[in-house]
Amino acid sequence: MDQMAEKLTIRTDLAMESREMAQQGSSQELPGVVVDSVSLKDIKITRVEVTSADGEQRIGKPVGNYITLEVPGIKDRDPEYEERVSKQLAEEIQRLVDLEDNSTVLIVGLGNWNVTPDAVGPKVVDKIMVTRHIFEFVPDQVDDRMRPVSAISPGVLGITGVETGEVIQGLVEKIKPDLVIAVDALASRRTQRIGTTIQIADTGINPGSGIGNKRMGLNKETLGVPTLAIGIPTVVYAYTIGRDAIEMVIEELSENIKPGSEMERLINTMDQDHIDRVINEVLAEGLGDLVVTPKEVDILIDDVCRIIGNGINLAIHRGLSLEDINRFLH
Amino acid sequence: MDQMAEKLTIRTDLAMESREMAQQGSSQELPGVVVDSVSLKDIKITRVEVTSADGEQRIGKPVGNYITLEVPGIKDRDPEYEERVSKQLAEEIQRLVDLEDNSTVLIVGLGNWNVTPDAVGPKVVDKIMVTRHIFEFVPDQVDDRMRPVSAISPGVLGITGVETGEVIQGLVEKIKPDLVIAVDALASRRTQRIGTTIQIADTGINPGSGIGNKRMGLNKETLGVPTLAIGIPTVVYAYTIGRDAIEMVIEELSENIKPGSEMERLINTMDQDHIDRVINEVLAEGLGDLVVTPKEVDILIDDVCRIIGNGINLAIHRGLSLEDINRFLH
Amino acid sequence: MDQMAEKLTIRTDLAMESREMAQQGSSQELPGVVVDSVSLKDIKITRVEVTSADGEQRIGKPVGNYITLEVPGIKDRDPEYEERVSKQLAEEIQRLVDLEDNSTVLIVGLGNWNVTPDAVGPKVVDKIMVTRHIFEFVPDQVDDRMRPVSAISPGVLGITGVETGEVIQGLVEKIKPDLVIAVDALASRRTQRIGTTIQIADTGINPGSGIGNKRMGLNKETLGVPTLAIGIPTVVYAYTIGRDAIEMVIEELSENIKPGSEMERLINTMDQDHIDRVINEVLAEGLGDLVVTPKEVDILIDDVCRIIGNGINLAIHRGLSLEDINRFLH
Amino acid sequence: MDQMAEKLTIRTDLAMESREMAQQGSSQELPGVVVDSVSLKDIKITRVEVTSADGEQRIGKPVGNYITLEVPGIKDRDPEYEERVSKQLAEEIQRLVDLEDNSTVLIVGLGNWNVTPDAVGPKVVDKIMVTRHIFEFVPDQVDDRMRPVSAISPGVLGITGVETGEVIQGLVEKIKPDLVIAVDALASRRTQRIGTTIQIADTGINPGSGIGNKRMGLNKETLGVPTLAIGIPTVVYAYTIGRDAIEMVIEELSENIKPGSEMERLINTMDQDHIDRVINEVLAEGLGDLVVTPKEVDILIDDVCRIIGNGINLAIHRGLSLEDINRFLH
Repeated sequence: MDQMAEKLTIRTDLAMESREMAQQGSSQELPGVVVDSVSLKDIKITRVEVTSADGEQRIGKPVGNYITLEVPGIKDRDPEYEERVSKQLAEEIQRLVDLEDNSTVLIVGLGNWNVTPDAVGPKVVDKIMVTRHIFEFVPDQVDDRMRPVSAISPGVLGITGVETGEVIQGLVEKIKPDLVIAVDALASRRTQRIGTTIQIADTGINPGSGIGNKRMGLNKETLGVPTLAIGIPTVVYAYTIGRDAIEMVIEELSENIKPGSEMERLINTMDQDHIDRVINEVLAEGLGDLVVTPKEVDILIDDVCRIIGNGINLAIHRGLSLEDINRFLH
Repeated sequence: MDQMAEKLTIRTDLAMESREMAQQGSSQELPGVVVDSVSLKDIKITRVEVTSADGEQRIGKPVGNYITLEVPGIKDRDPEYEERVSKQLAEEIQRLVDLEDNSTVLIVGLGNWNVTPDAVGPKVVDKIMVTRHIFEFVPDQVDDRMRPVSAISPGVLGITGVETGEVIQGLVEKIKPDLVIAVDALASRRTQRIGTTIQIADTGINPGSGIGNKRMGLNKETLGVPTLAIGIPTVVYAYTIGRDAIEMVIEELSENIKPGSEMERLINTMDQDHIDRVINEVLAEGLGDLVVTPKEVDILIDDVCRIIGNGINLAIHRGLSLEDINRFLH
Repeated sequence: MDQMAEKLTIRTDLAMESREMAQQGSSQELPGVVVDSVSLKDIKITRVEVTSADGEQRIGKPVGNYITLEVPGIKDRDPEYEERVSKQLAEEIQRLVDLEDNSTVLIVGLGNWNVTPDAVGPKVVDKIMVTRHIFEFVPDQVDDRMRPVSAISPGVLGITGVETGEVIQGLVEKIKPDLVIAVDALASRRTQRIGTTIQIADTGINPGSGIGNKRMGLNKETLGVPTLAIGIPTVVYAYTIGRDAIEMVIEELSENIKPGSEMERLINTMDQDHIDRVINEVLAEGLGDLVVTPKEVDILIDDVCRIIGNGINLAIHRGLSLEDINRFLH
Repeated sequence: MDQMAEKLTIRTDLAMESREMAQQGSSQELPGVVVDSVSLKDIKITRVEVTSADGEQRIGKPVGNYITLEVPGIKDRDPEYEERVSKQLAEEIQRLVDLEDNSTVLIVGLGNWNVTPDAVGPKVVDKIMVTRHIFEFVPDQVDDRMRPVSAISPGVLGITGVETGEVIQGLVEKIKPDLVIAVDALASRRTQRIGTTIQIADTGINPGSGIGNKRMGLNKETLGVPTLAIGIPTVVYAYTIGRDAIEMVIEELSENIKPGSEMERLINTMDQDHIDRVINEVLAEGLGDLVVTPKEVDILIDDVCRIIGNGINLAIHRGLSLEDINRFLH
């Protein structure tokens, strides 16, 4: 019941969208929220900073930095564009973290590899250039542009019986990385952002975010080390689609009715509860888990995960080219 | 363009739903359409027969028989219930086909194994008890309750460069089966039918049906042998959800307005074109391919495919028990 | 170099085979080694106990218990036989561990899921009935025949950059199980044991054993809790085959030569170094990693892993039937 | 029984090795067999032509051309080297086929995708640039450097119940390609050739060759169009290893015995029957199907299949670069 209640709001894990929704169409910036946008040809970057508890409450995201890259062009599968996205992602990651020459990094792939739209984390981990064991066991094979990197996809609660946070806490205490990067699938409120938007946040993963079921956060408080979250929307909840459609219709009607008329009163009865009841009927049971995706989301996700993996590799192993990385990996 | 136009209607591959829509809420049966419903405890069976060209035009499905099993209970994963569903499916298949003792059967798994909601056909084929080679090469190992069965998942046009119909025609001409059973994923208009409804049709697969791209039909005309189609809904098009939500709102409003009022005129402007424009805006680009599924559709589909596979096995190999079949298969 | 040197002995992870080799054909039992054999129709059980440091040195396995089930019949895929094997395995596991009603268990799947003969651990973990999260988050859904079980496949050093032992130590410190069961692929010296022999050891996993690369042990010393190892041979090293063939030929020749003859001298030059040189030439480079398997080892392993998974489930969740377990799992 | 008898010879699918064995150490060329070798830095090419029935009988391969590329360097995973191998493979393919500008090609991936060492064909097919449907349905998107290519992995007899040859005959009759290229896994007699040797033959696939079970040939006689076979060794039969080891030992001993001695007589009793009996004992039951592979053959095969796929793509789509092909494919 509690879960259903939670779903019956427009769900988004993108700070950019939370801010838009909080602004309610106004162009005035929110107190406690600083936004900076820049377009590099076909890569649009939005940097949202939540600077105060006030901002935090307004957009429902903890104080910190949220960088979004909008890269719709990756649908065209142009290797040159993909390379530019990976490089830009690396640059934005470096903007949020502060690595020493000998800093060590742990990459965590969150989510369930058996469920396509939840498999982003494990798929990105598959593309990571893992080097920590080379530093430990064959140090003479280390290229001095590498940093020691480890990577794990711990699975989800239903598979392991253990909260992801516990597995990662245990591991972090053992290997003591200087930085954790957690990769996860996100929910967006706009279908056109599926597979085409990347969010980086220096606040880590916090309870309730992400499309999977991860109660314990992964962040500096729980892990004791700086924790970057990288996510990509893979779904829009069906509820979101339904509500957006209805609200748009009501809005159109509202523009054309006389103030004080019977009709106005009627339309005003169409409050959120009422709308939710309609959507419930359309979606029927199980509505909380119904998601909208492109039919070929499996293939789309493979592309994006490779691009993100490369971005992370470039950010950590300074000076390595994508060609070096591919040679190491494949 | 043509494709988009096609999508902008409520799409369903279930004859049961086409008939419902054609009735437009009336309880009166359509001319040329005979319907018979029966509930066996928790399995609801609807047998729709299209008996004339008139019926064919009204519900958009060729003259023939369409049997639907509604089995929402399979979500509970109760092995006993699953067994009952497989047995009932076998019985309904036998109702539509007429097999001699030595009849040979070819099972065709349609769809793309790389795209989860389109992978039903190949997954069912994996569960089929294939025996034709035993009859040919080691006839003394044949159990006399078996019939010679072959099975193939030919892939889709984008993978092979060849229309599925051509591959199957070629194969049918070579091995001359007495019956073809083609298994495919379907689109429904109701999310609660995803993974919980099975349709059997003696009209085969016809152009435009199925969620994949199969231009050439698989039916008695194209293959020269009786062709049964078995399908299961795995998606609802996002467009369908949006339109259903809007129509329900408009309907509610309509019930409360005075005839002849300004409002009535306004609501009447909300015709299908208008609604489509709204949905277009909500879903943005790519709308044709946006589908609604349960997030864990991967797991759901595995269950259903095993049940269908068993149903087919029981229907063809008379007298074999599910235990015999499992022993043969696993 | 060190690695190659290590491989140039007959490698086996089965205590039963180590003992055979240490006996060198004699039927007399070794000091410090107690053996007990029993045949239950078509399941042969050998219980080897290493009771002293002397025994430990002679057969190269730590003091402790090693139980082997030889079950060649599983190649016939008879569900009834498989069930008997799972039950017998459960019984033998219970013989080696001492679980309280509320004991918690962690199952660890060792090995690399990308390499077929090394994927036994992860595949068994897929069949485990994981319940710890039910006890924690929905305790009212707990069946009182269940115990809290968690399970993880941590990957191998080359994939994660972290030693398996470190990942598991970290996790054990967090969730404090009362028992760890580590499942792994083994090497045997006899091809007929591939996929048909199961070994249980209460000594855990020790450096150098297992076919993968796991330097740190998983045992009571390293983890602080009792650790059971369950393994199944999936390979015989090609070197073993070559040496066995040559030794058998030399032995035959030896039986027929006159003592003191030129030929005797010649055959005596065929020492291990010499034999190794021959095998090296036959196998060429990379010999250490060449393994002998049945061509269809992929399919064989799937069967065995299900049987082992069921055995573990039955051992831990007392009173549950295989039917209950299947309902829970599939 | 017949199968076992067949296995008890050294099995190889490489014409190069058959010829070596037929020469029995002599350097004199065989009648009816013309050989030409060339080394391009680290790619060694051997072109064997069987020119007469005499040659055919001597090396057990039909009259025709057999080109072998030995490319041990691909183990180093150097992208530049891989590209050179793909280009050389393309050149050798073009040497054996005669394509017109509008010739159409069908690629057939033989073997069982569920059995790692037999999955080469299906894996190569996954890397093929399939274009036939573009020519048919969206001809304006055709790049004039492309030719119409279709591709299929029909599965094996045990999966489909139909002989591969029948499926392909049916398809060839439907789509009438000008050339068929059949890709398959091979057996070699030398472990160092596993995954590092590519054979192209203009004689197609003939009964008894290939490591799978394909009774009907795929060649110009059965298909009616020129048929190229491309194969790569993925296994050495365990029997081969055993026999090679024993023969080498016997040979060494023979060099040191006096003619006419008792020992000579003894060694002469070690004929093939005797050796086979020894190997049988070492390998125990199931010997026919025991194969030797590198433990990580799964990963090795992925690399090689990509290289072969690219070679085929370059050979057919003249003028396309590897970069163009990757853009099209991924």
